[in-house]
Amino acid sequence: VTRDLSALLSPHSIAVVGASPRPDSIGGAILRNLIRCDYPGALYPVNPKYASVEDLPCCASVDTLPTGVDLVIVVVNKDLVLDVVERCGKKGIRNFVIITAGFKETGEEGFKREEALKDLTQKYDLNVVGPNCMGIINSSPELPMNASFSRWFPKEGSIVFISQSGSVGETVLEFFAEIDLGVSLFINLGNRAGISENDLLGYLSQDKRTRVVFLYLESFADPVEFRLLVERIGPERPVVVLKAGRTPAGAAAVASHTGSLASPEAVVDAFLKQSGVIRVSSIEELLHALRALEWGAVPRGRRVVVLTNAGGAGIMTADACERVGIEIPPLPKDIQKKLSSFLPAEAGLGNPVDMIATAGSSDYERALEITLPVVDAAIVIFRPPIVLDEPVEKVAEGILRVAEKAKFSSKPVLSCSLSHGEVANRFSGRLAREKLPVFTMPEAAVDALAILCRLGALWEGKGTDATLVKGDRDHALRVIERVEREGRFALSFGEGTDLLLAYGISVCPFAYVENFAEAKAFFDKMGGALVAKVDRPGLFHRYEHGAVITGVSTHKALEEAIGRLSELVSREALRGGKILLQPNLSGRELIFGMNRDPSFGPVLMFGVGGTLVEALKDVSFGVAPVSFDQGMDMVRAIRAFPLLEAFRGQPAVDLPRLADVLQRLSQLVLDLPMIEEIDLNPFIAGEQDAAVDILIKLEKR
Amino acid sequence: VTRDLSALLSPHSIAVVGASPRPDSIGGAILRNLIRCDYPGALYPVNPKYASVEDLPCCASVDTLPTGVDLVIVVVNKDLVLDVVERCGKKGIRNFVIITAGFKETGEEGFKREEALKDLTQKYDLNVVGPNCMGIINSSPELPMNASFSRWFPKEGSIVFISQSGSVGETVLEFFAEIDLGVSLFINLGNRAGISENDLLGYLSQDKRTRVVFLYLESFADPVEFRLLVERIGPERPVVVLKAGRTPAGAAAVASHTGSLASPEAVVDAFLKQSGVIRVSSIEELLHALRALEWGAVPRGRRVVVLTNAGGAGIMTADACERVGIEIPPLPKDIQKKLSSFLPAEAGLGNPVDMIATAGSSDYERALEITLPVVDAAIVIFRPPIVLDEPVEKVAEGILRVAEKAKFSSKPVLSCSLSHGEVANRFSGRLAREKLPVFTMPEAAVDALAILCRLGALWEGKGTDATLVKGDRDHALRVIERVEREGRFALSFGEGTDLLLAYGISVCPFAYVENFAEAKAFFDKMGGALVAKVDRPGLFHRYEHGAVITGVSTHKALEEAIGRLSELVSREALRGGKILLQPNLSGRELIFGMNRDPSFGPVLMFGVGGTLVEALKDVSFGVAPVSFDQGMDMVRAIRAFPLLEAFRGQPAVDLPRLADVLQRLSQLVLDLPMIEEIDLNPFIAGEQDAAVDILIKLEKR
Repeated sequence: VTRDLSALLSPHSIAVVGASPRPDSIGGAILRNLIRCDYPGALYPVNPKYASVEDLPCCASVDTLPTGVDLVIVVVNKDLVLDVVERCGKKGIRNFVIITAGFKETGEEGFKREEALKDLTQKYDLNVVGPNCMGIINSSPELPMNASFSRWFPKEGSIVFISQSGSVGETVLEFFAEIDLGVSLFINLGNRAGISENDLLGYLSQDKRTRVVFLYLESFADPVEFRLLVERIGPERPVVVLKAGRTPAGAAAVASHTGSLASPEAVVDAFLKQSGVIRVSSIEELLHALRALEWGAVPRGRRVVVLTNAGGAGIMTADACERVGIEIPPLPKDIQKKLSSFLPAEAGLGNPVDMIATAGSSDYERALEITLPVVDAAIVIFRPPIVLDEPVEKVAEGILRVAEKAKFSSKPVLSCSLSHGEVANRFSGRLAREKLPVFTMPEAAVDALAILCRLGALWEGKGTDATLVKGDRDHALRVIERVEREGRFALSFGEGTDLLLAYGISVCPFAYVENFAEAKAFFDKMGGALVAKVDRPGLFHRYEHGAVITGVSTHKALEEAIGRLSELVSREALRGGKILLQPNLSGRELIFGMNRDPSFGPVLMFGVGGTLVEALKDVSFGVAPVSFDQGMDMVRAIRAFPLLEAFRGQPAVDLPRLADVLQRLSQLVLDLPMIEEIDLNPFIAGEQDAAVDILIKLEKR
Repeated sequence: VTRDLSALLSPHSIAVVGASPRPDSIGGAILRNLIRCDYPGALYPVNPKYASVEDLPCCASVDTLPTGVDLVIVVVNKDLVLDVVERCGKKGIRNFVIITAGFKETGEEGFKREEALKDLTQKYDLNVVGPNCMGIINSSPELPMNASFSRWFPKEGSIVFISQSGSVGETVLEFFAEIDLGVSLFINLGNRAGISENDLLGYLSQDKRTRVVFLYLESFADPVEFRLLVERIGPERPVVVLKAGRTPAGAAAVASHTGSLASPEAVVDAFLKQSGVIRVSSIEELLHALRALEWGAVPRGRRVVVLTNAGGAGIMTADACERVGIEIPPLPKDIQKKLSSFLPAEAGLGNPVDMIATAGSSDYERALEITLPVVDAAIVIFRPPIVLDEPVEKVAEGILRVAEKAKFSSKPVLSCSLSHGEVANRFSGRLAREKLPVFTMPEAAVDALAILCRLGALWEGKGTDATLVKGDRDHALRVIERVEREGRFALSFGEGTDLLLAYGISVCPFAYVENFAEAKAFFDKMGGALVAKVDRPGLFHRYEHGAVITGVSTHKALEEAIGRLSELVSREALRGGKILLQPNLSGRELIFGMNRDPSFGPVLMFGVGGTLVEALKDVSFGVAPVSFDQGMDMVRAIRAFPLLEAFRGQPAVDLPRLADVLQRLSQLVLDLPMIEEIDLNPFIAGEQDAAVDILIKLEKR
């Protein structure tokens, strides 16, 4: 359900409760900000102590406010907030920005106060921003509104900026002003007792003015909903997220590999990538990203040409490109020949193209025109030389002419000047006036281009597969019910097999046997070496009990193995265990897993099995639902990926089959929320792909 | 041999050959720069076209220059340069800065011109900076000299700046000026036909004024000498290097693993680290580094406290610290209690310490004083709040008081303000005046701290072990001579063993056998499973020939194996091969290797063997000589390092023994330069450590 937030974000009348003429009053600062930005609606200061504030007549109480006030800004003492909200709610006022702090961020009493506020929000169906926030800003020329105590009122633009933190909001607004980035809306969420980022995303998904959404978040109000919203908005309008608060790897003692390997940070990263978010990790990277996005050309590949009049800077740019995986391909011979027709003999015609210090506007324009067709993007370095026969603006205009045309073929052109000097600023200023991204340092241009490339790849991707695989949920539920009736929370191998097969995930052939005769029958049927082991629901570390015997290749060895395992299952430690036989599958050892994250829900894991996964923690994650494409991404994301390709005589692993397993596992755990953890370790990928060990744990209810 | 460069760098008289009054003349620009910086020595413009330039009488030719001119700046046409240098050389002038371009950077003819210049340099024993350079600058107040066409004359300072590139030099000088960093000397090396970075490092190692050396390099004039010089200077004065020109992984087809895995970039990185250089990868990182180094406190560990008045910025700082491996430990309870005695209830007492927006100078000063004793460094974030009862300079002064004291215990304090506003600049300016490192963004402060930590770790390290292990070089030489006499370029396993044992590197027991009887004797002696294989010098890919039989554990299996291998060595592909038996050693499979880099010399490699090393390229490098400590660094540098620790019941590998092997291998390849490549793959580390396969190739001469 999308909340209508138009009266909150574009109110025609605002009351500021707690406005005061005192210079250190936050309420007074907000009222003054509203007046200064020429807010055209009605303004009502509320304060019993004054007859007027800032030349506006002052109401003594919210009770005396006229009916139909769209928005109330609350800046009163924390002990008075609930009373103000309740009185306003009764009057039919629905929209609030609560600046006052002293809620859940300050211990027990504040927590209770926030709970009471939430109750009021529900009771009167209110839209509440805050508490403990800086306010909201709408910079549209029709209804300009600075309902915040920010020192900054951004210029009009197309970026929606949602910030959980007030101080980060204020900082970012300052830098937006510094680099002349326009904003349409700014909302500081504060404690998020009412309106969350999701409410705003839902409302904004219909807003045509918005071209880019930027969110600073320290946590997610509801990640599942967030993902759905970004999936809706992202394919048209980039959603950029600075998610702060990396949590160091958790130390909780869990039995499964998946549980012990899932670091909250890796899960957040996978989640944001799956959602289709462009994640940045600092304010600087954000500014680079937004500047590049403003121009609007998103490249289709990662190949760039670098043009420079300063050789060293060209090399540093190439280095920076290599670090982030942007290619600088050598230029074809015919292109080099064209360049050599007008560049001096000292010029370097490789890539970077070093046009040396004498290069002027026509050199830049022609070189850019000639090289852009064979790459996906260009980085143009123009360091104002000591001597140049023309104004530097001419060089900027030459670049602009080509860049404008290249926009239609989605080829961005990014520039840098290597200088903050007056001459360089004239060059940069000319480009910035047309919104062509321009930076001082080449590394910044490369950073920005890397972000454009990520967005390009995202948009090229096929997106989440809507038609997910189906499993036989009813059958699976019956298996689980049986286990639960027996008072168990772990499944046997046989039960796990039942579950996996119900979702089309293949399992290694097996037999439970009680004596040598039964074992011999299975051995003869399989016709090859067997593995014999003890199976018991919830049994980990089978090896440590000596409960696995491999390479059983003769009747004699089989008889010995059955004897040894029979003895083992009669002991206390393994009592109740059964003897399980399986053929010895050959192929690559993999691991698939799932555990549930308290906020993200089911998290799937993939890795190469054996010692690697344990020692190197080389695994990748995906938050369910995992589509086939996302499954492929997970498979490719592990460092050991080369081990899955054709290697030392082994054929390449069938990667789509692995992605399919991930997709099926994802559907299984979404259908069966009582499953807490899954480990398929190992899962063998060879001629046949099959789970060899299955560990499935149920939630203890 | 250290060249005396005093007359070059601090000349008492300078001639500018090619000086002209024309505004676009580079020679004129240099002369004007010399005049403008108040160069106190004698100045002689030389140009046949003018009677005077810039009011100085002009010599028509260098022949009419007075004798005893210290330095000649050459800015004439490229075709005249050699003549000018020759005439000056004949007059006894020894120091030159050759600005003129058109030498080896421009094809065949230029290359010859540069060779001729080098000949003159030798003939007259000249100090030549350039050609194709921007000049040199000395900013000492006694003898200020801007003998360059740079637009910047840096203020006096203690940084020596050596740049291979002119444009990078000019760019960096601009940013030094912007952040008020002082320089003592600037030298643009240009084509490096005469004076190299090594000549300068040698001369400067005796200069007390120099506190930091910064080099921008695209290549090394002589890396072996460079390393020796940095080893001499580095322990007292940080040597910071921006090495540009990362070369993508080479594609040369070589037989050994080591050769195919050594990427030039990884070798450069290892080399710089071994040399004791602080490597930076961009101008921005350089500026952060130099600003932090200027304060002078180098931490002894990586634990930092973060103090902030803006919560979000604190979290982003913590994130940035985690990314670069700086620890933010929780504060002990007693410290938290002390903090709570004066901070408000809303403050966060963990780490980061969130002192909220009301924090003033005494809060900062006390919190810093209380927390610094339990950590190694502090990052202090002060974002000027909307309301503060005191001037922001007071806050700066509080921080400075504690930072000054902390300097004596080597604890740096880095600050940031999150703003470029006027108020923030007053805060930052106050700190910068005292050289306390202050940044806008927290990521910059974290970057700078990371560099200080690297330097701290470098200085804590024991340094290169001078007393290297000794080997029996004569014995090794005799083995090699025998191989060479036979016209071979590869050693057999037996010969390889001889060589390794001569340097104290252990090898797996083995026997060459010709028949079953001999094999049986070895089998009985060893008393366990054997490996039988074909050995032939230079035989790679033994497995592909089926020439390895493992797990030979009975007489019968042995007989079969000998039969099969005898048959194999009679075939064409393996003709001349011998049958080699070894016990089946158990332990971790490792790989040691060496190949020779054309500029760095012998490069050692270490990795975990098996499929990992091939598929993941997870190896580390070291340039010989490799000390014991550097060997330990190499062992720890691989990603698979956790596999070497106690793991799945296997005890930890004896790491010092591995470092010892690296040190011994290093000595071996330094002693025996005719060895081109070595692979010990696998080398088994278990109860015994031993090379199991040995591949040694000699240079083809």
